[in-house]
Amino acid sequence: MIYTPETASGEAISKVESHTPKITAPDTVTAGQPFEVRVTVGPHPNTVEHSIRRIEVYLHEESRPFNPVFLTAVNLVPIYCEPDIRLNLKLNKGGTIYAVEYCNLHGLWEGRKAIKVSM
Amino acid sequence: MIYTPETASGEAISKVESHTPKITAPDTVTAGQPFEVRVTVGPHPNTVEHSIRRIEVYLHEESRPFNPVFLTAVNLVPIYCEPDIRLNLKLNKGGTIYAVEYCNLHGLWEGRKAIKVSM
Amino acid sequence: MIYTPETASGEAISKVESHTPKITAPDTVTAGQPFEVRVTVGPHPNTVEHSIRRIEVYLHEESRPFNPVFLTAVNLVPIYCEPDIRLNLKLNKGGTIYAVEYCNLHGLWEGRKAIKVSM
Amino acid sequence: MIYTPETASGEAISKVESHTPKITAPDTVTAGQPFEVRVTVGPHPNTVEHSIRRIEVYLHEESRPFNPVFLTAVNLVPIYCEPDIRLNLKLNKGGTIYAVEYCNLHGLWEGRKAIKVSM
Repeated sequence: MIYTPETASGEAISKVESHTPKITAPDTVTAGQPFEVRVTVGPHPNTVEHSIRRIEVYLHEESRPFNPVFLTAVNLVPIYCEPDIRLNLKLNKGGTIYAVEYCNLHGLWEGRKAIKVSM
Repeated sequence: MIYTPETASGEAISKVESHTPKITAPDTVTAGQPFEVRVTVGPHPNTVEHSIRRIEVYLHEESRPFNPVFLTAVNLVPIYCEPDIRLNLKLNKGGTIYAVEYCNLHGLWEGRKAIKVSM
Repeated sequence: MIYTPETASGEAISKVESHTPKITAPDTVTAGQPFEVRVTVGPHPNTVEHSIRRIEVYLHEESRPFNPVFLTAVNLVPIYCEPDIRLNLKLNKGGTIYAVEYCNLHGLWEGRKAIKVSM
Repeated sequence: MIYTPETASGEAISKVESHTPKITAPDTVTAGQPFEVRVTVGPHPNTVEHSIRRIEVYLHEESRPFNPVFLTAVNLVPIYCEPDIRLNLKLNKGGTIYAVEYCNLHGLWEGRKAIKVSM
């Protein structure tokens, strides 16, 4: 149900670059200290007919029996809201951040970034 | 990232029954006529420590080049909100409804139901 | 920021009937027993250009020092989702349910219903 | 239903400083050019028992017949997500940004910032 750069095939290959969320965050953070995570998508149109409508963020946390942890869902209203958000997160254990964006024409696309936690 | 009854393995098998969303809807609906879709999860605890926190609903629509269509996301606050929601949907083309629920301890779980559309 | 039937004035008066959420729920419920709350809006258009986009539900709970309690937010995608949702709630204390809907052209509108709780 | 610094009374006065959203954005922006809006709340606890759970952002747009325009709703999961978000917005007309945050113990609180748009 979710496209990724690794699994996109056929026509979806042409959408990888404009739709895969890019996650900017430190490679290593300190346990319990806030850090910024930026999620951007695009360049992509931002019109009523075609835009990035939502970004959700999850954490696959190391050594947690079940994953992921839901972190946030952000609505993006066409024209007014660009697909470029920044959150402040705190982690106590390392893992992988997943960003999933929804384009009203091209479905769900996932990007990932591993983050290590130092004590 | 999403557990399903078909792919759950190891410890997750014991969570299939209590976590897979059940979708109740007609097998066939009339194009453009509203019909009820009910999504339930459980029996499942509903406490601040452990509950179903969200239900999202998507449509994989027949002959659409890219899927899914995002239909709704519903927050469920512990204690007050049971994981039992009903929506009124209208379809013009058939497809498969996907419900994805989030349990704060046991992650994302998906259920599905195919719906045909008659003209 | 939120229109209500009581405070709407000028041009907004003509929108009261089509925009104020109607809440259907029992007048009295039993503490801790689930009951259905239905929220509907309309008749109202449901197009990409003009539709009810969201419904949020809050509880003003009796004898709680600060209110309200956020219960849910539901996204409604144009064309596919009608502004007609049903939730299952459980209350331990009485209060007033507030439903707030958002129309992309006519803003936020609030409806209310008092519910008593018997032990 | 929404507390503001101007209308808070009684016990709520002691919560104004820790709960009113602070909006950081330029006083004047260029029409159609993206700019950053930061919304922060606190210092405030961030625990499972007591945290800022949501931030919503609206625009009261000049000379629009009905207001507000819904811009975004952001969920904040306790412990992991700090109440500090940044969005990229584009405006074509000036107005007032409203941020509304929800604290699970102390309700809804509103902050505002006027923004002018130069052509």
